Amino acid sequence: MIKIILPDGQEKQFEGPLSVEQIASSIAISLGKATWGAIIDGKYYQRDEIVTVGGKLELITEKSPQALQLINNSASLLLAHTLQEMYLDIVIAQSEASGEGFYLDFDLNPSIKEGDLAKIEEKFKQNLASHLQVQKVCEPFAIGAKRYKNNSYLQELLQSANESAICSYQIGDNFYYQPFDVVSFKLIKAFKIMGLAGAYWQNNAKNKMLQRISAVSHFSVSQFEEMLKELNDRKERDHRKIGKDLEIFTFDNLIGPGLPIWLPNGMVLKKIIQEYIREKEWEYDFVEVETPVIGTDEMYKISGHWDHYQENMFPVMERDNEASVLRPMACPHHIAVFNYKQRSYRELPLRIAEHAILHRFESSGSLTGLERVRMMTLTDSHIFVRNSQIKDEFKRCFKLINEVLTTFNIKVDYYSLSLRDPNNKEKYYDDDQMWENAEKMLQEALDELAIPYVPMVGEAAFYGPKLDIQIKTVLNHEITVSTLQFDFLLPKKFNLSYINSKGEISTPTIIHRGLIGTYERFIAILLEQTNGVLPLWLAPTQITIIPVALTASHLEYSQKLQQQFKQLKIRTIVDERDERLSYKIREAQTSKIPYQLVIGDKEVAENVITYRQYGSQEQITMPFDQFIIQLNDLIINKK
Amino acid sequence: MIKIILPDGQEKQFEGPLSVEQIASSIAISLGKATWGAIIDGKYYQRDEIVTVGGKLELITEKSPQALQLINNSASLLLAHTLQEMYLDIVIAQSEASGEGFYLDFDLNPSIKEGDLAKIEEKFKQNLASHLQVQKVCEPFAIGAKRYKNNSYLQELLQSANESAICSYQIGDNFYYQPFDVVSFKLIKAFKIMGLAGAYWQNNAKNKMLQRISAVSHFSVSQFEEMLKELNDRKERDHRKIGKDLEIFTFDNLIGPGLPIWLPNGMVLKKIIQEYIREKEWEYDFVEVETPVIGTDEMYKISGHWDHYQENMFPVMERDNEASVLRPMACPHHIAVFNYKQRSYRELPLRIAEHAILHRFESSGSLTGLERVRMMTLTDSHIFVRNSQIKDEFKRCFKLINEVLTTFNIKVDYYSLSLRDPNNKEKYYDDDQMWENAEKMLQEALDELAIPYVPMVGEAAFYGPKLDIQIKTVLNHEITVSTLQFDFLLPKKFNLSYINSKGEISTPTIIHRGLIGTYERFIAILLEQTNGVLPLWLAPTQITIIPVALTASHLEYSQKLQQQFKQLKIRTIVDERDERLSYKIREAQTSKIPYQLVIGDKEVAENVITYRQYGSQEQITMPFDQFIIQLNDLIINKK
Repeated sequence: MIKIILPDGQEKQFEGPLSVEQIASSIAISLGKATWGAIIDGKYYQRDEIVTVGGKLELITEKSPQALQLINNSASLLLAHTLQEMYLDIVIAQSEASGEGFYLDFDLNPSIKEGDLAKIEEKFKQNLASHLQVQKVCEPFAIGAKRYKNNSYLQELLQSANESAICSYQIGDNFYYQPFDVVSFKLIKAFKIMGLAGAYWQNNAKNKMLQRISAVSHFSVSQFEEMLKELNDRKERDHRKIGKDLEIFTFDNLIGPGLPIWLPNGMVLKKIIQEYIREKEWEYDFVEVETPVIGTDEMYKISGHWDHYQENMFPVMERDNEASVLRPMACPHHIAVFNYKQRSYRELPLRIAEHAILHRFESSGSLTGLERVRMMTLTDSHIFVRNSQIKDEFKRCFKLINEVLTTFNIKVDYYSLSLRDPNNKEKYYDDDQMWENAEKMLQEALDELAIPYVPMVGEAAFYGPKLDIQIKTVLNHEITVSTLQFDFLLPKKFNLSYINSKGEISTPTIIHRGLIGTYERFIAILLEQTNGVLPLWLAPTQITIIPVALTASHLEYSQKLQQQFKQLKIRTIVDERDERLSYKIREAQTSKIPYQLVIGDKEVAENVITYRQYGSQEQITMPFDQFIIQLNDLIINKK
Repeated sequence: MIKIILPDGQEKQFEGPLSVEQIASSIAISLGKATWGAIIDGKYYQRDEIVTVGGKLELITEKSPQALQLINNSASLLLAHTLQEMYLDIVIAQSEASGEGFYLDFDLNPSIKEGDLAKIEEKFKQNLASHLQVQKVCEPFAIGAKRYKNNSYLQELLQSANESAICSYQIGDNFYYQPFDVVSFKLIKAFKIMGLAGAYWQNNAKNKMLQRISAVSHFSVSQFEEMLKELNDRKERDHRKIGKDLEIFTFDNLIGPGLPIWLPNGMVLKKIIQEYIREKEWEYDFVEVETPVIGTDEMYKISGHWDHYQENMFPVMERDNEASVLRPMACPHHIAVFNYKQRSYRELPLRIAEHAILHRFESSGSLTGLERVRMMTLTDSHIFVRNSQIKDEFKRCFKLINEVLTTFNIKVDYYSLSLRDPNNKEKYYDDDQMWENAEKMLQEALDELAIPYVPMVGEAAFYGPKLDIQIKTVLNHEITVSTLQFDFLLPKKFNLSYINSKGEISTPTIIHRGLIGTYERFIAILLEQTNGVLPLWLAPTQITIIPVALTASHLEYSQKLQQQFKQLKIRTIVDERDERLSYKIREAQTSKIPYQLVIGDKEVAENVITYRQYGSQEQITMPFDQFIIQLNDLIINKK
């Protein structure tokens, strides 16, 4: 007797073993047809597999959340088989699949070329059409591992897996070790190879370089077309592509992974943002400092990073009995600035700001463009306040953040207010009164500012509650751009004090303020949200001057204009290449430069300029001075 | 028979052993009186010591260059003896002397207090008056070392000295191990204790904190007075004192030695300098980048720093099979920027600039304020040129450097042109033609610029000749502020190329350019050469507003003025402390703020301001707007 519990809680009894399809059909004929497989008490079964033990049933169909993952798993298996048939010497190393596609890494000599991909895709589709059967075979470790004795990559994986049994998929006489679930190949209705690239084994640059095929597959041809379109759109809006096209940043293997290089265009952008932030911080009475990018182990032992954050830190550097470490955070450095002399209540709030370079050790596999890096510059501040100033200072900081994000036209996803979990107090710094006051004050302040926020109970930091401003990236990652965090703990750990108005020693509170987060993430967001079409004041190149012909008069006039712009600090280039005019204009459009000036006989003769704005077909002619007035208005007002 | 060779080459024979004094007297009676001691064939003898072996003679008198060093050595020994007499439990650790003074480190519990110093000085002078005799005693290691068996510091020194004999100085029954030469105590005519401070054993913060007495001594009372006056002057002009008084920078033990913290005032100064440099670099067509502060070991192996510069580098950080190191130089990083795409001859000269953060590991004992640090920001650039552009680019860079140094009114000591030693060619990159051309070109360029330079044969870098602009610090150290270095080697090591006008692959040359050197050294120089009296455009605080009384009307008017100045980006403070007016005015003078505004009833009533410029007694009254015009003129024109 097999007892199956349906999702709605009903129970069904069956006389003896039967297939997933039969179970589904017994519920509804249509369900029998639609079923891909099932999960019973957490164990996955394919459609044809025989169920011998009952339990809680979840049927899988194309509507299930894991449908695309299963299709990509299966396509990855079939691709491995296809390659094995085509290239006898190939060694399949590893594959990874998600709902959005998959990749397969392999070792082959001579390697596969771009030109071979069409042939591989063809052979894959033939295999699909030939209704290959796949069977799961589980064997004791020693026997299963022997099947892969010539595959050093799988040997390495299997050694570290430490299992007693190995399950493989058998297709014809071939066996494949892929530790994921698959469905029948006939459910794969669409397949496309997306690219061929080099990839280090285990994504580690110290290992051998393998080849990687990336691909996507689907159970529906029409949905597949839509998905491809969206993938393409997303790729176009991905800051990694825009950053490359606009020459904003790059990486270099000799310098190291996850360490961004700001190219001249990126540096222009970074400097303009920095100048603007400095202006706002001057307006809001912040004082700027610059502190070392390293600190002693001793300091991070006091701050607690040593015990709680070390896995995210670079290794310690020891020499001559001294130990230093690249700082993951600048809090202790700003505390040193506060602490360098005895402070008085008159000096508070003391708003210490820094464009602070930080280093965090992320695994090389997790690095993602500017979104996840190992070196970053945080628009950081630590504000030392008396308790009576906390609320006003919080509102003031929020106002600053809001003004800045508005200037850049940043689309915020939501405001997250991280609170303590009152049922789990031992996780937090122990001072009930403090927590209650702070959380109440924060909520009041947000209500007074009329900010809709999402309370996140249990998400507070150990040292206090915080407000995070959240944004969604093109890759659908949720990241924090701005943050305001209360900290009642660090002032105690570092024994901070000020002399209050009665002449007594008091302890200040710290507010950690991230204004626009790190430049790295902020610029990634900016590139994605603007699609690389930066407003005039931010554009690394503001004007491209295109002489109609490479004649002396056109060139001279173009260069004269460039010099005039240069004196006005307007960033221009002259396109002097020996290319067709239409080509140059088209290229200026791709590089998303706000203005194109086309200089021909008329402009030279009449001493005027003719411009076209990015995204517009209209050509406008006017005197230079008038154009400058128009530009300056846009630049100064950050339009 | 003892044969003595006089400095002029003459020889003198003596029948048998005799004292230094007797030798000197045999040359001239007056010399016998003046002689302190002698060096014979490199060995030092005191005046009374018996010479048994002849050789080349150098008599020592108060005119000898080592005279003050010997006096300070001797005073250091006598101070050790004085302390030993006064404090039976004292353990004398180490001392160091130069021509300018000495210090003595010791371990004592309870410690010596400031108030004890007069007593110590008194006892020292009593000892001087009592004509103590000192005798040098040399013994086998085992016997000599036993004398200091209770002195763990000396034990540590002796272990590492690895000598077969130990020489001590005996005074009465006491023995002192001080590995330097002394003269008779009666030559010490003046002595003064300069300070008492804490000092780590061996200057290393991981070791025990000892006490340190600093002192100076002299053989002439009148010269001593002069020297004290100069020492005091120099101390006043030392950037470490000025930097502290003006709150420009500080250091923190928890962050680490030699790592400067730019306090808000220092950061203002640094930012203004940076903005100005960026303006000039824009004018001279540099492009700015920002690159990581670390790099892989691999990169520094290619560049050659790994083999030739490792002792100046921080330790390597290894994790997950990756090795990185804090960069000591940014050359390879700028090469990565050059190399990130194929370059064309049209792009050259490509002037890549960066305010580059570098780290160099200096021993903790050698760290000196901002002059010798472990972290620094270099106004760095690497210019990639075609060979035909080298000379023009050199002249252009020199012009830039010269303009910038002139703006800051920097007093240059001399221009040093470092050339190859043609008799020692194996020390240099091997390409005769290249060296000859480059050196000829450099000299021509300097002649055309009418720059008087000092040729320094044999001082060139391995990779090419260079021009250094040299400056003297208050401590009499010679340092390089600006530099232009030719490099023919790195382009080859990193396989750099560009496509020349014929479409062929060519190799560029690199010019390393340090514009004003590091911010650290430049600001040290600036503070010393201006004595901290910075011109208006550079002054961290430009105006201090002093209300005559802390009445509502005076305060309100002062604050209103401050807000108006703030909007115009003029840096002001209001001195609202409850202190006497005269005190506040005096303090504003010490802090070297360019303008003091005194706000009284008249200013409020007539809506004017009354100011006094730093260093002037004259008070001038005028309307706010007129004052602003005057200020802006000074600021914009950097007067």
